[in-house]
Amino acid sequence: MPNGCADVEVAGISSPESASEGMVTFVSDAKYADKAKSSAACAVIVKKGSVIPEKPCLETDDPYVGYALVAQLFEDVTPLFGAGIHPQAHIDRSASVDSSASVGPGTVVGPNVKIGANSRVGANCVLEPDVSIGESTRIDSGAVIRYGTVIGSRTVIQSGAVIGSDGFGNARDKDGKFIRIPCFGNVVIGDYVDIGACTTVDRGNIEPTIIGNGVKIDNLVQIAHNVTIGDDSAIAAQAGLSGSVRVGKRAIIAGQAGFVGHIDIGDDSFVGAKAGVSKSVEPGAKVTGYPAREFMVMRRIDAACNHLPDLLKEVRALRADVESLKNNG
Amino acid sequence: MPNGCADVEVAGISSPESASEGMVTFVSDAKYADKAKSSAACAVIVKKGSVIPEKPCLETDDPYVGYALVAQLFEDVTPLFGAGIHPQAHIDRSASVDSSASVGPGTVVGPNVKIGANSRVGANCVLEPDVSIGESTRIDSGAVIRYGTVIGSRTVIQSGAVIGSDGFGNARDKDGKFIRIPCFGNVVIGDYVDIGACTTVDRGNIEPTIIGNGVKIDNLVQIAHNVTIGDDSAIAAQAGLSGSVRVGKRAIIAGQAGFVGHIDIGDDSFVGAKAGVSKSVEPGAKVTGYPAREFMVMRRIDAACNHLPDLLKEVRALRADVESLKNNG
Amino acid sequence: MPNGCADVEVAGISSPESASEGMVTFVSDAKYADKAKSSAACAVIVKKGSVIPEKPCLETDDPYVGYALVAQLFEDVTPLFGAGIHPQAHIDRSASVDSSASVGPGTVVGPNVKIGANSRVGANCVLEPDVSIGESTRIDSGAVIRYGTVIGSRTVIQSGAVIGSDGFGNARDKDGKFIRIPCFGNVVIGDYVDIGACTTVDRGNIEPTIIGNGVKIDNLVQIAHNVTIGDDSAIAAQAGLSGSVRVGKRAIIAGQAGFVGHIDIGDDSFVGAKAGVSKSVEPGAKVTGYPAREFMVMRRIDAACNHLPDLLKEVRALRADVESLKNNG
Repeated sequence: MPNGCADVEVAGISSPESASEGMVTFVSDAKYADKAKSSAACAVIVKKGSVIPEKPCLETDDPYVGYALVAQLFEDVTPLFGAGIHPQAHIDRSASVDSSASVGPGTVVGPNVKIGANSRVGANCVLEPDVSIGESTRIDSGAVIRYGTVIGSRTVIQSGAVIGSDGFGNARDKDGKFIRIPCFGNVVIGDYVDIGACTTVDRGNIEPTIIGNGVKIDNLVQIAHNVTIGDDSAIAAQAGLSGSVRVGKRAIIAGQAGFVGHIDIGDDSFVGAKAGVSKSVEPGAKVTGYPAREFMVMRRIDAACNHLPDLLKEVRALRADVESLKNNG
Repeated sequence: MPNGCADVEVAGISSPESASEGMVTFVSDAKYADKAKSSAACAVIVKKGSVIPEKPCLETDDPYVGYALVAQLFEDVTPLFGAGIHPQAHIDRSASVDSSASVGPGTVVGPNVKIGANSRVGANCVLEPDVSIGESTRIDSGAVIRYGTVIGSRTVIQSGAVIGSDGFGNARDKDGKFIRIPCFGNVVIGDYVDIGACTTVDRGNIEPTIIGNGVKIDNLVQIAHNVTIGDDSAIAAQAGLSGSVRVGKRAIIAGQAGFVGHIDIGDDSFVGAKAGVSKSVEPGAKVTGYPAREFMVMRRIDAACNHLPDLLKEVRALRADVESLKNNG
Repeated sequence: MPNGCADVEVAGISSPESASEGMVTFVSDAKYADKAKSSAACAVIVKKGSVIPEKPCLETDDPYVGYALVAQLFEDVTPLFGAGIHPQAHIDRSASVDSSASVGPGTVVGPNVKIGANSRVGANCVLEPDVSIGESTRIDSGAVIRYGTVIGSRTVIQSGAVIGSDGFGNARDKDGKFIRIPCFGNVVIGDYVDIGACTTVDRGNIEPTIIGNGVKIDNLVQIAHNVTIGDDSAIAAQAGLSGSVRVGKRAIIAGQAGFVGHIDIGDDSFVGAKAGVSKSVEPGAKVTGYPAREFMVMRRIDAACNHLPDLLKEVRALRADVESLKNNG
């Protein structure tokens, strides 16, 4: 709800620090209010009740959410290599590409692939046979979507991501040799999902690997075979989920965290950066550390570790004192 | 060896949980026997002596190995983009591609490359000059095999993997500037090797980087220059081996483990998930933790850490008691 | 400065262990002098004053730097797929490729891309619109350079690297749903930079992500949005920098280290392998561990941890002794 009736034309969105004329900016924290006031910004998104009198303001419950939503309005969604199918794309005859979708040069679209309305596929991607892509989904240059993968709508798969790679499953014979276990499952990805650059999502062994709606995954993340991730969970860069891990809804996993296989990570749980998780995590729980422990427990152990070298000395001194007391007793 | 003389036609292989009619399933753990019995499966792979009377059974020493071997029989090895060289592949005239091999659209096969019988190369791969690929090897879409790499037979290189990247070697001059050290070695990969998606294997500085036969490497693993990996070792996702690490035979390295350079990881050793290994590991040894220690030592330290905050309090209490005893003595 | 006036023709450079006839070798550590002496090498790079009388020697302040510089002389810089633009490259009409540059087959060069003199671009790369590449820069096969990225001269971007991916920014609404924040910044990379295979560098939100001159980055590293890295810093494999981290000049970050967002890593600092860095690091400081602490502090804690299980027992024994003393007092 705009404050006053300023009739401003907005060219883009910017941070309070670098907002130039014609830009709208936002105040997600009261400490930035002065910066926004003194900036050249033509309008400011503010928290309800925190209007800056000198500027046209948009009041909202959460200015950071407001920033995200307004930023999406200014996003350029023109296909990078032009509308439609680029003449240098390789489209199999049996593929079905919506006329409003775009496919970049060098991209291979295999047999029986389906690409929905307004989806944009970059350059040198591979969509292997029987891949299905919903509407308004973006596949960035160089991504590889392996056979049979199903991707929803308004989803983003970034460059270098590999979806549908084989799971790492091997049986070991009595001589210690590994025998590769082929995978017959696929990968199913929901709507409003983001998958980062060079992230790998393995296909399931028999059942599919499943990524729910609204899941956000950063770069270089490993999702092993038969993992399932509930709606609206987020996974930061370089985290790794072993086979058959089940992540609930709205869970948050920080960067470089790792998980052994076959455990449950509950709804609304939080796993700290670099945590090594070897047991299931209860819904709503917060864990961190290696091995992972409940957040406050880990904090106390980490703090105690700082005293550990002194503690060793003190215990030695105590022993000497006790021996002396015993001898004098 | 089949139990009884049931004449069943098998359509595929499945887990006990999801086996439908016409599927063979397996019982790798006695606790799944009931599921297999009540499933619609037409046959069951069981441990010798653990026949399920209600089902035609295949007895074997190790049902999980049996599952792997039977699953390989059902694997579809039809080339994803058709037999032979796809018309949209870019093959250098000096390259030699066996007539039974397949090369997908958009794949670049450079000068003097050799591709052996029945090998399958996906779409948009790059095989740089002088690459040699054995028989029945699979190179998945988007993999990059850099110049001079030698790959054996029945090996799989997954999508997004980069084989033969430059090693990370830099000399530092007196001003603190780094001077890149070019690499003259290559990468040599054996037979029955699996290399996961977005895994990187650097070429050697002068000698090659070597990956032995039967080695299984998961996704997003880093293998630095001049690493050598012995036969039948396995490395899980996101582990990283620094330059000149020597891994023995049948070693197992769990996910996200890291290794400093120039150390030996012995035959039949085991390195736990997220371990930070800064010293050589003896053959047969089990290490884990950061910094890595012998497995049971690390377990005891981790268990003791749980008591650390209380220990601090107890030592303070002991000090008070001892001082009191001294004063009253 | 060569020792004596030997007139030798040199075919290449090699380690003391494997130097054959016609190779120059180097002695970076006195312990290798004997190997160099007994090798077939036709010349040896040695430290000033450490001439090997039996061999023509090149004396230098730092033989390892000498090795790097001589190795660069022997590096083959012939384009892998031939000079100029390969007929199977896809070059947009509005792109400007210097006549001395080379572009490999299958590579896509988008609208308004600029490629400077003597730069070499491999096969199946993507250079999205408005990318600018300086002189004598190398882009290896399969690299993806996203729109608007600016890359300097004499820089190397290895295979599978993704430069300019979207940052991982999401606002969370009151229902716990994430709203993607589009990125309007780009990536700016300096001269003499190396970026490893499958490393990802995210574009900035509004300001650019900046990588200074001479920065060396290994494989599978994550550089998040709005990170800035000062000149001549180095980052080893699988390290991860969260959003808006500022790394100074000549800092060294070891493998698998991780950093929370919005912190400063000072000039000339050192961060150990697998360190989990949650606070800013002072210039010149050395930190390691998880959570990261000053180097010697961490060493002492790690050493003390080895005594922790025994310490627990000793404290229990002390308690028993103290109670006994109290009762007998």
